[in-house]
Amino acid sequence: MNKPVESPLASATAADARARWERDYREAIGTDRATENVSGIPVRPLYGPDDWAAYGQADPLGFPGQPDYTRGIYATMHRGRTWTQRQLIGMGTPPDYNERLLGIMARGATAVSLIPCNSVYRGYDMSSVEPELLGTCGVVVNNADHMDRCLEGVDLNRISCALNDPSPFTLLAFMLVTAERRGVPWRNVTGTSNQSDYISHYVANHMFYRLSLPGARRVLMDHIAFCNEKVPRWNPMSVVGQHTQQAGATPAEAMAFTLATAVQNAEDCIARGMDPDQFLPRFTFFFDISLSFFEEVAKFRAGRRIWARLARERLGAKKETAWRFKFHGQTSGVDLTRQQPLNNIARVTAQAMAGIFGGLQSLHTDSYDEVFQVPGEAAARIAVATQNILREEAHLTDVIDPLGGSFYVESLTDAMEEKILAIMKTIDEAGGMYKAVESGLVQRTIGASALRFQQRVDSGEQTIVGVNAYRAEDEAAARPAVERPDPAKMQAHLDAFAAWKAGRSPAAVNAALDGLRRAAEDPKANVFAAVVDGARAGLSNEEICARLRLDLGFGQPLAFV
Amino acid sequence: MNKPVESPLASATAADARARWERDYREAIGTDRATENVSGIPVRPLYGPDDWAAYGQADPLGFPGQPDYTRGIYATMHRGRTWTQRQLIGMGTPPDYNERLLGIMARGATAVSLIPCNSVYRGYDMSSVEPELLGTCGVVVNNADHMDRCLEGVDLNRISCALNDPSPFTLLAFMLVTAERRGVPWRNVTGTSNQSDYISHYVANHMFYRLSLPGARRVLMDHIAFCNEKVPRWNPMSVVGQHTQQAGATPAEAMAFTLATAVQNAEDCIARGMDPDQFLPRFTFFFDISLSFFEEVAKFRAGRRIWARLARERLGAKKETAWRFKFHGQTSGVDLTRQQPLNNIARVTAQAMAGIFGGLQSLHTDSYDEVFQVPGEAAARIAVATQNILREEAHLTDVIDPLGGSFYVESLTDAMEEKILAIMKTIDEAGGMYKAVESGLVQRTIGASALRFQQRVDSGEQTIVGVNAYRAEDEAAARPAVERPDPAKMQAHLDAFAAWKAGRSPAAVNAALDGLRRAAEDPKANVFAAVVDGARAGLSNEEICARLRLDLGFGQPLAFV
Repeated sequence: MNKPVESPLASATAADARARWERDYREAIGTDRATENVSGIPVRPLYGPDDWAAYGQADPLGFPGQPDYTRGIYATMHRGRTWTQRQLIGMGTPPDYNERLLGIMARGATAVSLIPCNSVYRGYDMSSVEPELLGTCGVVVNNADHMDRCLEGVDLNRISCALNDPSPFTLLAFMLVTAERRGVPWRNVTGTSNQSDYISHYVANHMFYRLSLPGARRVLMDHIAFCNEKVPRWNPMSVVGQHTQQAGATPAEAMAFTLATAVQNAEDCIARGMDPDQFLPRFTFFFDISLSFFEEVAKFRAGRRIWARLARERLGAKKETAWRFKFHGQTSGVDLTRQQPLNNIARVTAQAMAGIFGGLQSLHTDSYDEVFQVPGEAAARIAVATQNILREEAHLTDVIDPLGGSFYVESLTDAMEEKILAIMKTIDEAGGMYKAVESGLVQRTIGASALRFQQRVDSGEQTIVGVNAYRAEDEAAARPAVERPDPAKMQAHLDAFAAWKAGRSPAAVNAALDGLRRAAEDPKANVFAAVVDGARAGLSNEEICARLRLDLGFGQPLAFV
Repeated sequence: MNKPVESPLASATAADARARWERDYREAIGTDRATENVSGIPVRPLYGPDDWAAYGQADPLGFPGQPDYTRGIYATMHRGRTWTQRQLIGMGTPPDYNERLLGIMARGATAVSLIPCNSVYRGYDMSSVEPELLGTCGVVVNNADHMDRCLEGVDLNRISCALNDPSPFTLLAFMLVTAERRGVPWRNVTGTSNQSDYISHYVANHMFYRLSLPGARRVLMDHIAFCNEKVPRWNPMSVVGQHTQQAGATPAEAMAFTLATAVQNAEDCIARGMDPDQFLPRFTFFFDISLSFFEEVAKFRAGRRIWARLARERLGAKKETAWRFKFHGQTSGVDLTRQQPLNNIARVTAQAMAGIFGGLQSLHTDSYDEVFQVPGEAAARIAVATQNILREEAHLTDVIDPLGGSFYVESLTDAMEEKILAIMKTIDEAGGMYKAVESGLVQRTIGASALRFQQRVDSGEQTIVGVNAYRAEDEAAARPAVERPDPAKMQAHLDAFAAWKAGRSPAAVNAALDGLRRAAEDPKANVFAAVVDGARAGLSNEEICARLRLDLGFGQPLAFV
């Protein structure tokens, strides 16, 4: 530890230098812009030792892998195992998806992700929606056979799979049945029920909200309990900050709501008799990474240490594995523009860097064409390459928490922490996250923040290149061709699905549906176990969702706002 | 100043935490990769307070705008006036250039830059080279009329112009004549003789080396003396780190060679009787920004404070304006790939961020297609937008020196400083930069570094996405169409030039040429003043260069290596 003794003379000199800088700054700046970040924290022109409370301490930040994890949740962080490159993909039929998946893995993606068609999210089978809508935003997977085909050539003993799969988690059920068929023990299956957080869907992602609020709460608890017991390497709880931030929450609000949601779900698990040291290590988080560069770095660093304290002090977890804030980051599509779309590659690069410097465990970089469609093949390739370039050419993974100690970053991390805690306090005062969304408090907060940001764009205070400034005339020329699934392949998929449905035994289908009903009616039964049984017995996505909606209530989030 | 008193207990705790981290790290990492940056500095996995010698001091870095300027040369830095967006452009005929220039300024570029055709660099007029080569890499500007046309609509009282203009600086001569014709006083003319550094051209950019080494040295001194006296807001000296780094010098070597070159030129000026407090404020620097992210940030921060000390202590300048290290950064084209060219947008974004965090005054972001050609219109637009996005959407200019205090960045800045000083010592021991390049020392050093880097690429130790890893099969499809000047316009330009030449008075031409000869023969005369007189009298670029080559010797750098 090199720490020179401060003489009064040295301090006086520092004070003089600061006074001179302040004078020079004021003279040169003219009218300074009033700068604050999106979360409303003032951003001063200069940060120095005086701006970081812990400056001068022998161990101001702790060490990576040690609570409160400011510098990262693992001792090695990206220097050891870099983040997982998890590109969210999904389009067309299961064979279409599989082909793209194997291609993207060959080019460096190290984990599977699966985005289903919107019709699947909404709880329908392909036979219930207009054929031209099918597979344009995700893969049409309606039963266990489809899932098996999607994952052909993927070793489920080894490859981590993230499924975008809201309650009642039909996709995981299809995947567990696939694993059974292949002789892969469930205990080997790894991955995440991506965005299993019903609260964020309810608040900000209405289309994917499939069950009533109390019903969704019940099924999530069953799902967590089931996975903890039977699929122990699976992460059943993915708490989502992305939806609220994309809906307009500031980065501090999005982090606060996410942490409050995690607390809500954890307290629900504890009330159900589960052990936080068992279920918390399988909690993961899913965040938006906006283009507000330093604010995002600070958001992640602050969130990480708040969670460590919450897990330990409020939720009572004793193991360090339960305190670690594991998160996936996705570069924010909201920041991308339809105007001059190739500029989005630059935006995504800066967003990804913020996420990396924030210490993420898993990263999806948006393709520049995601403002128009599910990523096209060429655009998705650039998005993956961006991660490879940042890791291997820009060498961003050599050093753990490379911005640690920066006066600005540390000051902002402290300020974001304070802001996040203040917002969480309002949620606690409203009775916790469940009650706060039931009452509309969270939704109103997001709405106000979204309006404020839009006003800043409309007034020109916030520039968006190509949108409210630097517009080009002939931008339409750069718009990429929209890729659509092959209608013939989709028709074949529809025909095969109809034939499969017709070939089932009506008695078996009815028995499986009845199993779902009985589970839903029995508060001691596990509804998700019944969903898995239903998937194994040949129920489709829509059949499972529709039956549970009868029993647990239909999701109608808009009625509450 | 918040500085808690350290108790022995706290220190013991910090030591325990560190020991635990080291143990955890070793257990988790397996075989750690031996990591060093391109300059050969080892990169450890973690940097903390112990790694930064000045940590704990009340004023460890000083303040922006105060020597030694670690945090930037101005009190306001980018928060006040952001960097100048200086896109290097040039293609086709003067009307082609002018059209593109006005377009790029309308989209946010705030200063002019002009890249001439290679034939101009090589000292020829358009009539002396194959017509199909003309204007493919820069604008064909051979006389004062052409320069006037290039700058039509540009207010020379107000707009800063950077001319890529090696010795004998014919382009500045044409521009000064243009200013005269428009009634713009020379004292109002601002800009830079970009890359006026003959040493870097000699060492690493042979094509543009137009006069013998001693001749170029003489003309540079005349040019600096002339501008200091008659064009006082012009920067006649642009010392170039770009050429050596692009030729293979490491970032530390490139910085060391550049600083050594600046010292050489400054000492030559002093030997000529010039006052460092007058000429040093008009020295500028021109650097490559490679993709080695943190290394580049540290390179610039270290170079800035070394220069402040050199200017003050070695060169004897007394004014702070003479100590300021003003630099232009250009994202490195060497890092860009022909494979999967749109990936270059991501590379340029990260490079630009390194330059911005390094505190540059002016920035050129490469277009993704510069691996194929002079930037096409659409690609150049993305390059400009990248700067706008980083400034206005990512908000990188809100805070001065935002990485300042980062343990890694400060430790690396110190280490780069030490490395740069060690390399400069070898140059001093060889008798200074002029003698070191005459003897080939610098060239051999660069060659060895280039070989070492290439070996790392060939062995796969250094990954380059799309080149030695993550190759795609169908990459050819993404190759942009090469833009060529319109042959009909170029022919008209050639015809008009021939007519102009034929229309001059042979007596006036001969008198002007004789004026050049007399200036070159008289050691007390100013050769650059004669170049300006020649330009005014109607001499062309080739006529001026050819005459001076007869008098001052032809540049033959390859013969020395």
